[in-house]
Amino acid sequence: MADHDERDVLAAGLSGALTPFGHRLMARVYYADTDFSGVVYHARYLEFFERGRSDFLRLAGVHHTELHDGKHGEKIVWVVRRMEIDFRGSARIDDVLTIDTRTDDISGARIYMAQQLKRGDEVLVEARVEAAIVGENGRPRRFPKEWIAAFMPGRCDRARSSRIGSCDNR
Amino acid sequence: MADHDERDVLAAGLSGALTPFGHRLMARVYYADTDFSGVVYHARYLEFFERGRSDFLRLAGVHHTELHDGKHGEKIVWVVRRMEIDFRGSARIDDVLTIDTRTDDISGARIYMAQQLKRGDEVLVEARVEAAIVGENGRPRRFPKEWIAAFMPGRCDRARSSRIGSCDNR
Amino acid sequence: MADHDERDVLAAGLSGALTPFGHRLMARVYYADTDFSGVVYHARYLEFFERGRSDFLRLAGVHHTELHDGKHGEKIVWVVRRMEIDFRGSARIDDVLTIDTRTDDISGARIYMAQQLKRGDEVLVEARVEAAIVGENGRPRRFPKEWIAAFMPGRCDRARSSRIGSCDNR
Amino acid sequence: MADHDERDVLAAGLSGALTPFGHRLMARVYYADTDFSGVVYHARYLEFFERGRSDFLRLAGVHHTELHDGKHGEKIVWVVRRMEIDFRGSARIDDVLTIDTRTDDISGARIYMAQQLKRGDEVLVEARVEAAIVGENGRPRRFPKEWIAAFMPGRCDRARSSRIGSCDNR
Repeated sequence: MADHDERDVLAAGLSGALTPFGHRLMARVYYADTDFSGVVYHARYLEFFERGRSDFLRLAGVHHTELHDGKHGEKIVWVVRRMEIDFRGSARIDDVLTIDTRTDDISGARIYMAQQLKRGDEVLVEARVEAAIVGENGRPRRFPKEWIAAFMPGRCDRARSSRIGSCDNR
Repeated sequence: MADHDERDVLAAGLSGALTPFGHRLMARVYYADTDFSGVVYHARYLEFFERGRSDFLRLAGVHHTELHDGKHGEKIVWVVRRMEIDFRGSARIDDVLTIDTRTDDISGARIYMAQQLKRGDEVLVEARVEAAIVGENGRPRRFPKEWIAAFMPGRCDRARSSRIGSCDNR
Repeated sequence: MADHDERDVLAAGLSGALTPFGHRLMARVYYADTDFSGVVYHARYLEFFERGRSDFLRLAGVHHTELHDGKHGEKIVWVVRRMEIDFRGSARIDDVLTIDTRTDDISGARIYMAQQLKRGDEVLVEARVEAAIVGENGRPRRFPKEWIAAFMPGRCDRARSSRIGSCDNR
Repeated sequence: MADHDERDVLAAGLSGALTPFGHRLMARVYYADTDFSGVVYHARYLEFFERGRSDFLRLAGVHHTELHDGKHGEKIVWVVRRMEIDFRGSARIDDVLTIDTRTDDISGARIYMAQQLKRGDEVLVEARVEAAIVGENGRPRRFPKEWIAAFMPGRCDRARSSRIGSCDNR
């Protein structure tokens, strides 16, 4: 196998994929994720969810490095404001997990996402996440219009069909 | 300073202290807790909260090792079922944090705890935690009556004063 | 895209790939891996290395769950005995890393592995790892002969060509 | 107990203590530190070691925040360059650990530290750490002379007694 092809295969699923509902990522459970009770440590599920949100952003064209480097006018970071997490089942070492992320709503300076962590079809953990972007002074920033189109394609489809038209620049 | 005394001072606050409302622990923010945005990574707050709950248990006389070794009849582990977390502010490297934990309710096989992570008097993160204890088969177990007295002293005081008397074995 | 195909792509590189030298895995840097200095926290590189070793094992046919469930006679876990780590450069948020793992030697109850973490062709971190497998009593166990063939294919090739023949069961 | 006194007790051992050999810190093992094999995850020992080094710095008068805020002329961060770690034994949930840190040598822009993690008198993990301080451009910076006195008191004692006198500003 040529080096280039090999790299392609190895990196194929690295950022997950955009889906009709939002974004899907697959990830493995390693030693580092587990605790002595035998299953994944509860706070580590939040890291899997962060990966899902970060890769959703990435595939939607938003990069942490660019945000951080001020490509959007000033240094911007994402901040999680609130999470509701239901731990329904437990993931174990060697498990392959699916992390599904969708945007429920974007309202001014807040984005509301729903995430599911599954093993096969079994939902193990569910999270509702309220996040924001903040500038260097810690003040929240409004989401650029093109991000709304990127994170909530459905809203724009609906908006267009009802001629509300706030997603024209899609 | 004699070795014994030194150890006493170094270990003085290690498990925090029982308080009228429940339990208080102090902890430091290190490199490991932070992320590149400059503040504590959101999932690491859950580790601080776990420390608070674990030490509350410890001072109330409940040890993970004993639970795990089956001292209570079978191997028992704590499981977090649900968390609601409000991230109001950000902790930074070198910060000294206070983690306050109290029990809001115990109902059959569920315990409801409220936790605050503060820097000085400023509340940075608040969490509501629903936890359970499960046996080896993964089935929830009822909380022993003496634990209710240990985790919710207030309830027993109220119970006694109204002669309901379900906390007599305190 | 059919669901089955999509899953194949998403999971394609999940366990990395066996290579002539051993094993290669690619992984992404997320918020959780970084610290406030702006780059990956030094201890998190060890998690990337663990993923590399775990997936090398996996593709070589050795599963943590099976080891843990006693498929090999008793409950077995991997233990890292010694690490030498050179931190030459720093990985950053959003970086795609390559983790290369090879076995340098297997001797009785010890396995010696060399690992490199790279961004593109630049070696950021190098590690030499001495590991062992231990049984339930904590006592080291000898590596099964078929594992030697799986982890050190080169040695068996050399052994066969020189008719030493300790790798016949490959 | 008055609030002020309580805070004193809770925070008493928080930063450990300077010792004749360097620095000692005590810390507890929580769920978050363990993995499914039942003991502390190997990479988490590095977090305990970082706490020891950070608090040694703190008590020696060097604060990450001040370094980061450019109090010393430019933004400075600590970087670990190399670690050799021997994992001799395993720490378990609820264990109280002692982390001993001493400076072996300071040479230009490098500091060499030796660390031990113990449970009671039993040494579980030993580490040799080579670290450096780097400025904003990533270039190593020489250690200020007063830091040498702070981190290697012994060297200055020896220096003074032999009238070499490079530690006069202590």
